[in-house]
Amino acid sequence: MNQQYDFGMIGLGVMGRNFILNVLDHGFSAAGLDLNHEQVEALKQEAEGKTVLSTSDTAEFVKALSTPRKIMLLVPAGKAVDTVIGSLLPYLQEGDLIIDGGNTFFTDTDRRFNSLKEKGIRFMGMGVSGGAEGARRGPSIMPGGDPEAYDIVAPILEAVAAKAKGEPCVAHLGNGGAGHYVKMVHNGIEYGLMQLLAEAYDILKHGAELSNEALAETFEAWNNGALESFLVEITAAIFRQPDALSQGSLIDSILDKAKQKGTGKWTSQNAMDLGIPVPTIDAAVTMRGLSALKADRANTAPKYSRSIEQLPLLDKEALINQMGEALHFAFLMTYAQGMHLLHEASSAYQFGLNPETIAKIWRGGCIIRAEILEDMRQAYQQEPSLANLVNSEIFRSPLLYGQRAVREVLSAAHQLGRPMLAMASTLHYFDAIRAERLPLNLVQAQRDYFGSHTYERTDREGSFHTEWGA
Amino acid sequence: MNQQYDFGMIGLGVMGRNFILNVLDHGFSAAGLDLNHEQVEALKQEAEGKTVLSTSDTAEFVKALSTPRKIMLLVPAGKAVDTVIGSLLPYLQEGDLIIDGGNTFFTDTDRRFNSLKEKGIRFMGMGVSGGAEGARRGPSIMPGGDPEAYDIVAPILEAVAAKAKGEPCVAHLGNGGAGHYVKMVHNGIEYGLMQLLAEAYDILKHGAELSNEALAETFEAWNNGALESFLVEITAAIFRQPDALSQGSLIDSILDKAKQKGTGKWTSQNAMDLGIPVPTIDAAVTMRGLSALKADRANTAPKYSRSIEQLPLLDKEALINQMGEALHFAFLMTYAQGMHLLHEASSAYQFGLNPETIAKIWRGGCIIRAEILEDMRQAYQQEPSLANLVNSEIFRSPLLYGQRAVREVLSAAHQLGRPMLAMASTLHYFDAIRAERLPLNLVQAQRDYFGSHTYERTDREGSFHTEWGA
Repeated sequence: MNQQYDFGMIGLGVMGRNFILNVLDHGFSAAGLDLNHEQVEALKQEAEGKTVLSTSDTAEFVKALSTPRKIMLLVPAGKAVDTVIGSLLPYLQEGDLIIDGGNTFFTDTDRRFNSLKEKGIRFMGMGVSGGAEGARRGPSIMPGGDPEAYDIVAPILEAVAAKAKGEPCVAHLGNGGAGHYVKMVHNGIEYGLMQLLAEAYDILKHGAELSNEALAETFEAWNNGALESFLVEITAAIFRQPDALSQGSLIDSILDKAKQKGTGKWTSQNAMDLGIPVPTIDAAVTMRGLSALKADRANTAPKYSRSIEQLPLLDKEALINQMGEALHFAFLMTYAQGMHLLHEASSAYQFGLNPETIAKIWRGGCIIRAEILEDMRQAYQQEPSLANLVNSEIFRSPLLYGQRAVREVLSAAHQLGRPMLAMASTLHYFDAIRAERLPLNLVQAQRDYFGSHTYERTDREGSFHTEWGA
Repeated sequence: MNQQYDFGMIGLGVMGRNFILNVLDHGFSAAGLDLNHEQVEALKQEAEGKTVLSTSDTAEFVKALSTPRKIMLLVPAGKAVDTVIGSLLPYLQEGDLIIDGGNTFFTDTDRRFNSLKEKGIRFMGMGVSGGAEGARRGPSIMPGGDPEAYDIVAPILEAVAAKAKGEPCVAHLGNGGAGHYVKMVHNGIEYGLMQLLAEAYDILKHGAELSNEALAETFEAWNNGALESFLVEITAAIFRQPDALSQGSLIDSILDKAKQKGTGKWTSQNAMDLGIPVPTIDAAVTMRGLSALKADRANTAPKYSRSIEQLPLLDKEALINQMGEALHFAFLMTYAQGMHLLHEASSAYQFGLNPETIAKIWRGGCIIRAEILEDMRQAYQQEPSLANLVNSEIFRSPLLYGQRAVREVLSAAHQLGRPMLAMASTLHYFDAIRAERLPLNLVQAQRDYFGSHTYERTDREGSFHTEWGA
């Protein structure tokens, strides 16, 4: 009898190959499929000596898998997923499982789940975070959908996932497209944290004239404290990266035009649909857009170069300390916004999410892994129904402490005339969520004035309309 | 021969009835259709003695119109529009024109246009702004689509539209769903301006302890200067409105929970799709969401009540003056963001918009009419291809002047611990659009570090990838 393989992967780019190598490391056999022969060869070389099949032949690939087949896709989200599924169908049998591991929009996952269910094929949407290195050494894995389908593949996923405090960073998260939804929000938080770090870099550079060496030391020090996280760690390393072409630091030769693949944007757009405020993530999406307008900015800059009086340099040490505290505050608030969105989405889309589980599996492997996640996990353990982490006792002290520093660094930014849209959005969100009364009574009055939209009152129930000015 | 009517309206709510009365005022005859008999009766009474037909009978309504028929819909956007169109089709003949005057999403308008074109029926998406009073006395009207269809109805629309400097506030704006798109962005700008006014109110109330009487006087003074606009005018009137129930000012009894119908949200979501930053509008959408979370805010407020040291009251006169200048700056920047979005959308969707025409028809009748629109019109007259108004010489001086005041009022807000998300977003947008270099080189480095997404360089063409830390 021919060799039967435990696990199949379609899409043998660096992520797919690394994921397979990770599966092989844990004693499973695996088959890989890609129409690109170079990728097929690359896997053959990298997995030499292991129990692996690498092929461009769909029929050979499917037939080589043990049943029920467990086939994971790491192909670009969108049409490619439908095309691959269509090419598999003639060879599959009832009970086989297809796993979409890409950054798919969650409603597409629901659609595919329902269409495959009619054919007796199981389908699972699954977020995978950790980049190429995570895929190789242990990513954070976010599967959703049918719990029985998860059970089929759980032994493999739990083996390959990152481990945090001894626990695998994978769990069945919820119904339908829950896995892809959680991954989308993960990426939204990632956008927010990255933009906050960029703003901190900018103010320390312009306000305290820190060298790249000093920036690296500063971020390293932060990474040894409350800000301990993957993104702070790599930021420190980035400032140390030399550049052979310029003979300087690589960071200084990189163009300030950031690209995006859309998951941050989806998070903001979907949050608006659900009415949940995530302004730090919105700001990060906006700043990617502004960064792309490089030619416009270069055109505008000279017209407004003298718009503020240059004040003396700020106190370097004080600014560094305040920035660290401000970042800690803003990181906490960014996670809080993302988790608030998950809370609402869980009831709106009936995902049935458990926030403690999400905090747990984000502690290792993924891009937003951070010491803060363990605090979050504890906050949800104490209070599983918590809608917003600002109301957790665990968050209260650091937020109260940190918000003063945010006001200081924003003053510095205003003085320098440098943008800190994400940091500012975070503070104003905090000042709004802790305001029992907001001035939107005026907005209600205006809407009733010009559009007869009615308003509610503070002192009695019902909808009211006024003939204004009468 | 029976009376043939010039114009038909479906949907006889207050907007539809007022629009018909406006049409009748200008010597045209009109027919109205509504399935609700009370609305039919209301029109009969309000239009007594005029050449009007008011009915619930679709066949009677359609047959009474002179051909080519001109039938306008003012019904809720969405399914109702399709239902009404379906009910009309059996009675229409080739060349008849249906006009959707509601707040329809522009892609729905394109879909309906194409489907009706196959049947030989003309279709036009048309934005109407000005509320009930505007519909009655002269709204700003934003039609798009087939220019020949516009010609059929132009005499009526030009008669009923508001007039600004003698010119009617209506013009054929562009192809396909252009009219509804422009109206959507109009509403996005409206959201931004309303939120900015709410924030100004809040800081003057908490920071300078202005009474409602003093607030009314302040807004009236602003309305006599550079901020002259409909929204500032009605805001002043709102602060003077008495309340019979509480015996106080009505504004103080209105609940701070703002509702929304979605056009502001659509503007932000679509701007994200096009990659155009509109952070002031995003902030307004976010703050409506935050206002709706009233119970959460009431729960959170006591936990953070002592988060800042209460400082002495600010200098009242200085704060009022700075706020007026800050508002002028922020109003200009909000229009600039909306117009930038229209510039991009015009090329992305091939609308063929003329920004000067848009500024012109917004000068009267609509909710965002303001003295600023005449400056905008002139800026576009001088430079029709201007992508962003910040680059106009006409905007440069007031922006340079106003941005200092914004920094001052934001300091006041930070000191008070009160949110000014829209004002802050506006300043940081300004500081970003005038920054030749943003810190998003770090974001590019991070993306390449963990995801091998590559980056561009400042000193040569191409995409680069680095083995970071190697």
